[in-house]
Amino acid sequence: MTEEKVTLKGSGLTIEQVAKVAREKAEVEITSEAMDRIVAGRNLVFEMAESDVPVYGFTRGVGLNKDRQVVARYYQDYNRNLILSHCVAVKPEASEENVRAILLARLNTLLVGCTGIQPAIVTMYKDFLNHEIHPVIPERGSIGEADITCLSHIGLAMIGEGEVFYKGERMLAAEALRRAGLEPIVLGPKDGLAIVSSNALAAGEGALLLKDIADLIDTADILYALSLEGFKGNVSPLNEAAYKVRPLPGQAYSAKKVREYLKGSYLWLPGVNDTLQDPLSFRGSCHVHGSVRDALEFVLRFMDYQLNTSDDNPCVLVDEKVMFPCSNYEVTSLAIGFEMLGLALSHLSRNACFRTIKLSSPKFTGLSRFLTPADTSVIAYGTIQKTFTSLDAEVRHLSNPVTVDYYSLAGEIEDHASNMPIVVQKTAKIVDNICYILGMEAMHAAQAIDLRKATRLGKGTKAAYDVVREEIPFLEKDRNLTVDIQKAYEIIKSGKLLDAVKKAMTE
Amino acid sequence: MTEEKVTLKGSGLTIEQVAKVAREKAEVEITSEAMDRIVAGRNLVFEMAESDVPVYGFTRGVGLNKDRQVVARYYQDYNRNLILSHCVAVKPEASEENVRAILLARLNTLLVGCTGIQPAIVTMYKDFLNHEIHPVIPERGSIGEADITCLSHIGLAMIGEGEVFYKGERMLAAEALRRAGLEPIVLGPKDGLAIVSSNALAAGEGALLLKDIADLIDTADILYALSLEGFKGNVSPLNEAAYKVRPLPGQAYSAKKVREYLKGSYLWLPGVNDTLQDPLSFRGSCHVHGSVRDALEFVLRFMDYQLNTSDDNPCVLVDEKVMFPCSNYEVTSLAIGFEMLGLALSHLSRNACFRTIKLSSPKFTGLSRFLTPADTSVIAYGTIQKTFTSLDAEVRHLSNPVTVDYYSLAGEIEDHASNMPIVVQKTAKIVDNICYILGMEAMHAAQAIDLRKATRLGKGTKAAYDVVREEIPFLEKDRNLTVDIQKAYEIIKSGKLLDAVKKAMTE
Amino acid sequence: MTEEKVTLKGSGLTIEQVAKVAREKAEVEITSEAMDRIVAGRNLVFEMAESDVPVYGFTRGVGLNKDRQVVARYYQDYNRNLILSHCVAVKPEASEENVRAILLARLNTLLVGCTGIQPAIVTMYKDFLNHEIHPVIPERGSIGEADITCLSHIGLAMIGEGEVFYKGERMLAAEALRRAGLEPIVLGPKDGLAIVSSNALAAGEGALLLKDIADLIDTADILYALSLEGFKGNVSPLNEAAYKVRPLPGQAYSAKKVREYLKGSYLWLPGVNDTLQDPLSFRGSCHVHGSVRDALEFVLRFMDYQLNTSDDNPCVLVDEKVMFPCSNYEVTSLAIGFEMLGLALSHLSRNACFRTIKLSSPKFTGLSRFLTPADTSVIAYGTIQKTFTSLDAEVRHLSNPVTVDYYSLAGEIEDHASNMPIVVQKTAKIVDNICYILGMEAMHAAQAIDLRKATRLGKGTKAAYDVVREEIPFLEKDRNLTVDIQKAYEIIKSGKLLDAVKKAMTE
Amino acid sequence: MTEEKVTLKGSGLTIEQVAKVAREKAEVEITSEAMDRIVAGRNLVFEMAESDVPVYGFTRGVGLNKDRQVVARYYQDYNRNLILSHCVAVKPEASEENVRAILLARLNTLLVGCTGIQPAIVTMYKDFLNHEIHPVIPERGSIGEADITCLSHIGLAMIGEGEVFYKGERMLAAEALRRAGLEPIVLGPKDGLAIVSSNALAAGEGALLLKDIADLIDTADILYALSLEGFKGNVSPLNEAAYKVRPLPGQAYSAKKVREYLKGSYLWLPGVNDTLQDPLSFRGSCHVHGSVRDALEFVLRFMDYQLNTSDDNPCVLVDEKVMFPCSNYEVTSLAIGFEMLGLALSHLSRNACFRTIKLSSPKFTGLSRFLTPADTSVIAYGTIQKTFTSLDAEVRHLSNPVTVDYYSLAGEIEDHASNMPIVVQKTAKIVDNICYILGMEAMHAAQAIDLRKATRLGKGTKAAYDVVREEIPFLEKDRNLTVDIQKAYEIIKSGKLLDAVKKAMTE
Repeated sequence: MTEEKVTLKGSGLTIEQVAKVAREKAEVEITSEAMDRIVAGRNLVFEMAESDVPVYGFTRGVGLNKDRQVVARYYQDYNRNLILSHCVAVKPEASEENVRAILLARLNTLLVGCTGIQPAIVTMYKDFLNHEIHPVIPERGSIGEADITCLSHIGLAMIGEGEVFYKGERMLAAEALRRAGLEPIVLGPKDGLAIVSSNALAAGEGALLLKDIADLIDTADILYALSLEGFKGNVSPLNEAAYKVRPLPGQAYSAKKVREYLKGSYLWLPGVNDTLQDPLSFRGSCHVHGSVRDALEFVLRFMDYQLNTSDDNPCVLVDEKVMFPCSNYEVTSLAIGFEMLGLALSHLSRNACFRTIKLSSPKFTGLSRFLTPADTSVIAYGTIQKTFTSLDAEVRHLSNPVTVDYYSLAGEIEDHASNMPIVVQKTAKIVDNICYILGMEAMHAAQAIDLRKATRLGKGTKAAYDVVREEIPFLEKDRNLTVDIQKAYEIIKSGKLLDAVKKAMTE
Repeated sequence: MTEEKVTLKGSGLTIEQVAKVAREKAEVEITSEAMDRIVAGRNLVFEMAESDVPVYGFTRGVGLNKDRQVVARYYQDYNRNLILSHCVAVKPEASEENVRAILLARLNTLLVGCTGIQPAIVTMYKDFLNHEIHPVIPERGSIGEADITCLSHIGLAMIGEGEVFYKGERMLAAEALRRAGLEPIVLGPKDGLAIVSSNALAAGEGALLLKDIADLIDTADILYALSLEGFKGNVSPLNEAAYKVRPLPGQAYSAKKVREYLKGSYLWLPGVNDTLQDPLSFRGSCHVHGSVRDALEFVLRFMDYQLNTSDDNPCVLVDEKVMFPCSNYEVTSLAIGFEMLGLALSHLSRNACFRTIKLSSPKFTGLSRFLTPADTSVIAYGTIQKTFTSLDAEVRHLSNPVTVDYYSLAGEIEDHASNMPIVVQKTAKIVDNICYILGMEAMHAAQAIDLRKATRLGKGTKAAYDVVREEIPFLEKDRNLTVDIQKAYEIIKSGKLLDAVKKAMTE
Repeated sequence: MTEEKVTLKGSGLTIEQVAKVAREKAEVEITSEAMDRIVAGRNLVFEMAESDVPVYGFTRGVGLNKDRQVVARYYQDYNRNLILSHCVAVKPEASEENVRAILLARLNTLLVGCTGIQPAIVTMYKDFLNHEIHPVIPERGSIGEADITCLSHIGLAMIGEGEVFYKGERMLAAEALRRAGLEPIVLGPKDGLAIVSSNALAAGEGALLLKDIADLIDTADILYALSLEGFKGNVSPLNEAAYKVRPLPGQAYSAKKVREYLKGSYLWLPGVNDTLQDPLSFRGSCHVHGSVRDALEFVLRFMDYQLNTSDDNPCVLVDEKVMFPCSNYEVTSLAIGFEMLGLALSHLSRNACFRTIKLSSPKFTGLSRFLTPADTSVIAYGTIQKTFTSLDAEVRHLSNPVTVDYYSLAGEIEDHASNMPIVVQKTAKIVDNICYILGMEAMHAAQAIDLRKATRLGKGTKAAYDVVREEIPFLEKDRNLTVDIQKAYEIIKSGKLLDAVKKAMTE
Repeated sequence: MTEEKVTLKGSGLTIEQVAKVAREKAEVEITSEAMDRIVAGRNLVFEMAESDVPVYGFTRGVGLNKDRQVVARYYQDYNRNLILSHCVAVKPEASEENVRAILLARLNTLLVGCTGIQPAIVTMYKDFLNHEIHPVIPERGSIGEADITCLSHIGLAMIGEGEVFYKGERMLAAEALRRAGLEPIVLGPKDGLAIVSSNALAAGEGALLLKDIADLIDTADILYALSLEGFKGNVSPLNEAAYKVRPLPGQAYSAKKVREYLKGSYLWLPGVNDTLQDPLSFRGSCHVHGSVRDALEFVLRFMDYQLNTSDDNPCVLVDEKVMFPCSNYEVTSLAIGFEMLGLALSHLSRNACFRTIKLSSPKFTGLSRFLTPADTSVIAYGTIQKTFTSLDAEVRHLSNPVTVDYYSLAGEIEDHASNMPIVVQKTAKIVDNICYILGMEAMHAAQAIDLRKATRLGKGTKAAYDVVREEIPFLEKDRNLTVDIQKAYEIIKSGKLLDAVKKAMTE
């Protein structure tokens, strides 16, 4: 747990901050200006509740029930019913870090001040985060046109129903509130809708995922550099001049990083590599990684909108004193961005597989077949190619789109959707598989380096090599590689390798 | 645990027997004729080991290493190395029932007698099953050209290395063998290859899955019948005459079953339904379910070959005294069959979703909107449509093919694959999602029946209705439906609903 | 044009007969028993028209308009309106052979006698075929729940409206009827629906396609055999014994054929091939081709139902004197079968690509790089790998499923579909691409044979080689290979190569 | 043909200019600075040719043949062989406008000055464009790692071989050169590679396609506005305030445009629409169209790099006097961008389909069923829903990714690809289908407007309505709608509707 605090104000929230709150349990606080907006919005709601204007989800029902009036004395019942009837989600349950990210994502967009929610609920989001009260949220069942089927479980916990984890222990929500000294919320007008009508599930999970992807590309750059050393590869594709001629942003950045990781490497010595050109999987790595960066940049831009603007419907404008219907819950740009990103990652995955195959091929490395330390009796990496390519086949499968497969629902009224949560969740599976694939690349690269007795490694690659070898010794004799694969996966997945390299680079 | 025994002889093994051994832990025994074949095969191997003929995986290495000789005094080392180097699998670990199905699938094909494996290993498969020694097998990492990366973990346990579950408790393999009073195997010539070179992972998991799918179609027929009662639907699509005119086997069978489930139902009373024709989702259900049956029949045929013939390479023929290379590990027909089956299930899934949507539409049912018991204050099934259609979107995504996405591996020698395990595993996810979807259909159907006060239900549908209502009461007021959905899923997934109906039908 | 006649009776129509009528313009005739059934069905319709029973598409409207009555004096107008309003199709226009196959497919199912159509229309189908009056039918726009949007154009021509080709010349339908001495049809009750409510578009196009696929697999077997000779490949995968051990039907058949094609080849000479095992693309070809055969067998079975039973709704049963609604237009089993077949073909395609890549690799062939006749100055087949693999990427893309992507239409009544025509049409594109791919394999195989100076070819492969070399000389110097590719494609696509080999095999 | 000239200088080329040259046959001219760069680059090549440094594709072979030396006296032969052996493409042939766009795309990137090509060839590109000499270029066969298999046909024509269209007439290239008074090129060092090693095929075709997509979104905005008038839809989703709260760029732009198109419409009159909220397909149209705009912006950015920087390998830097290998032919960012764009278009397509379905539903419009002018006898738009939804199913299918399905080729050296041309070509099919779909929406919107007798249309929508009604009269009686659909398609596809609206908006 970190000591840092994250201050929220409805704008400027970054994925790094989301990670800090979700993973390091940083405390959150809310600016007073932001809370003032909440109060002003709430006052406007009450003004309007007294007027006669029909407002969706407020003095009228939601969805197809928009034709039904909701009268003031039933606000609490109506809003509780709304929460309950929207609890229609399916396992698996969101992880603790995802629940925190979801709470945070919703909290920050509330602070924009366009919701009209009661201030106590806003405070409750903060309290849940700071007290570590984490509602049990099954994470499937949303079509990504606001994650109403899942976010309802947060409302459930706030009124003291359903289940939560409190500091890691599963219990009834009522009990957790009691232990934390919090009062259950009494729902007022619009509160039910305010809680459920948001894309915070996909936003929260997606924001953490983008952080992971950013790290994954960095890691992939490092492993490409390490593989280059194992391969005794040609460094000409890193030539800065080429990226000036054709300055695609992502690839130029990756090439720059790879040059830095390789600073001091034997690869730069004259005469080291005399192949005119390496296989494309080596020559094009910066370009492929760069394409993931280009795709990521697109998604980050729309994630920024998602985390820092209101996706409420109806939308409350305090200054203009209006509450009007809108379609700000539409997240298609973000959803197609994630789809593109998954496809870019599929390129990265395949690229890593091909590099790894090359690393075990004597024709290209001049080393032993399958990097065996002893040609005739140790099989070494003779079978593992099946493993990483089968994981890549899964990645390829996951990269098929799902965003557009929606129905016309609710009396044909709800005839568009983005399937954002499904898109985000399948992209997370892609990332996890790639952690395995890069892990296996790391095993090959380190083995090749050892066989080659290459001792002058780069500034960054040396650190990466050391992390690998700390967990996974040189393959001297055949052993249970399932164990090695899992270890390699973990140093990638946990960020251990990346952290070590980052540290080395700043020394 | 059942008292029944399953006798194995290398032929005639059915998916029902696989389920019995895997799930009910039926004891297995081997016919003496089958063991005789094993012994004869082993003798042939030793004869050949003394001759000079190079045999793949035996006196020669495997895969690209086929150019390397293996000499007799190194048989044990070589085969242990082979097992170790083939342990390159990735989590998740196979469930207990899947591990048992895998052991059984391999055991039975060994009994065909074309492997040349040592008899003690055959006995060990049987012992593992009967003593409940279940090797830890990570289930990903195979490209379905024999599941060598995963099955190796069985060999590992047999030589007393790695981990197993012994009667449900996780421990070192050596410890489990000791407790069960078994001696570790000493590997001889060809034993390593004999253990790993088999499609038993996909076969075992696939066989259980086919059993589940057979049950799922039966369940879908029942729920269609139940929905017809909730819908007050037209029974004319069940008219036997139509299926005589166009006798596609699957649809005729489903229609017959649905007629039986509805025996005695109010739907057959004169004048009940005056719509000329119901929506296609109701009219075509038997046809769609029938298509799943048609696809299943295709897959069952090739699963039968898989469970009851040898997929070894090389292949040992005792009578002819030969051991020859072959491609009997090729399982493309089975893999594409599973792909088709997944697509058929996607039709079934979508069909159920559309039926369920119709059940909550007053225009079609004459009942209240979203099957609410009280029009103005209870929201009822107003949001749940998102849930089942989002699960169907996942089904649609999973139904994309993966079988053909393979690489050229091992020095370009291994340039075909089927990805069978991935295909089977994604199909299992489809089935799981459909259990949720059918569960939600059951909730709707029962609610509609109650609102309609339909009391004369069919022989089978009455039993189904009772099972649903036992777990899930009438929705009188809004409540946390996530709980109901999970319960509905469980009565489908566990077979509870199907069993109750089957029982009712035989009474 | 053939002299043979094809006699139709509503049963027993084969895809070979469809090809004969569609491509060789065989004359069709109808048995008198079949025509008697038509007359009897028509009489029943008139009996019922006088009664009061509401019948879909007859005394009632179709689709959502099923609630609308159609009274007797408006039969002609109503049915003409039905034809016109169902003319909602999109280009491209079906080819002449496809139009003929469509007419035939519909004609034969009419003869089953379950339609109640007027006899003159039945005769008109026959006349259209025998006089070569081919309505212009745009072939897109159907969702495969009867091809109503396209088949309407046949009705249009029959009443003397719209356009047709008459003996190859495009003209107004009225003019063609006049020239052929035929009277336009006067539509009576149910006639409109009888014309449009059929899956004859997909059935006709699909039947021809299945004939092409059957030929394609035969051709692929031949080219595999030819490649084996170019490769100097190991014939051990053809060993009959293996197919007895594991008797999957398709692969055993392919292996038998390949052995026959190779009868007399140098490959059977002792000592020719000393590799222990070839790459899987060579070793598994019979198995992959066999899987296409297995899939084809499934589809043929359901195509047989489609061509020889009634898919009419409502269905007329003369003996029982009833006309009842049904869902016999549901073709999901056929649609998913075609999807599986496309996937099987994708395996075949990729297999051929990998074989062809191997043929140009010195490491495997011992021949020159890229099969160049002169190592240093001729580039030969150095670039063509891009060509066939890019076509295979298209095949992979086409093999993604489309059958389940349908809407809920017509006031939510029509909420299931099969997309059969789209499935068939995309499968046809797969087949066309594979003709190119196999053509390029043929180029490589012949070149390798020449470079190897292999003169003793097999009985079938010699004939295949000769056909290739008749069109495409040995590549002595670099030349425009786009021309060669097109020629190679044409000898595959036209059946010229297959015919020559078949002829050789019977000599 | 336009009178405008387009001046090229290796930078700043826009898709509008590409369209002008490709479609309006604008004359091109080259700045003298750019030609100077060409000359300088060529001089550098000759300098290096005399030195001893091995350079890929120059003094060394290409691809796997990079190990082979090319000596000076064979430059012409070698480069002709290179051109010939790279002519390995497959039909269909590129359209005239695509050929022109391809020539232009390559010409402009040559002018960057990093190629080292001989100046006469640069001039020849210009001459081909200005003389309308259009090489026959089969457009399939490239894997998008430079379109070497297709662009070779341009080189073929330049040396006076192969075929071209000359001012629309097909003839031998030699003949066309003669008629145009041009001399065939004599190839020198690096010229072959300079001609083929470029992504100009995908760039040229892609640039025109992006122009079409930009127009298509504008058209979709207009038709949405027209449909709103037919639907009597709620204009609240156009409220500018919402787009300020959540300023995603694309959706804000679309909303602004739609407001302008609807200026003066009856929809803005008070009390016109009293539904609280329309179906999402109407409420979210600006957001969905906006997502296409957001995706387009991404692609345009990378297309700009593609059209205006060098993708040559090796890369010549005149100032630095170096020629170095690079991977500037990598176009993954552009390829994944097009994939995302296709997916965004799939959303747009589906959105239009749902709007059109709603337009024919009395429940939503208050108009007659299927927009029939006379309820009981005219069927009107009762069947056409099948047509547009089947085209949308094709769009859904086409939107599956293909970019990552590549092989390891050329002795495993070329183990990455982007499949860019396939991606672009499938996206073009998506666009074509959407032209049909929007055409059918236009038919519905105009019919609804007429039935509603809505006379006060918006400034832009009035113009759109007029264009539709000019070609397609009100549907008074059933007629052959296949004809109407084709007309509607053409006014969309040709830009006629868009042009008319643009003109109206500026009046």
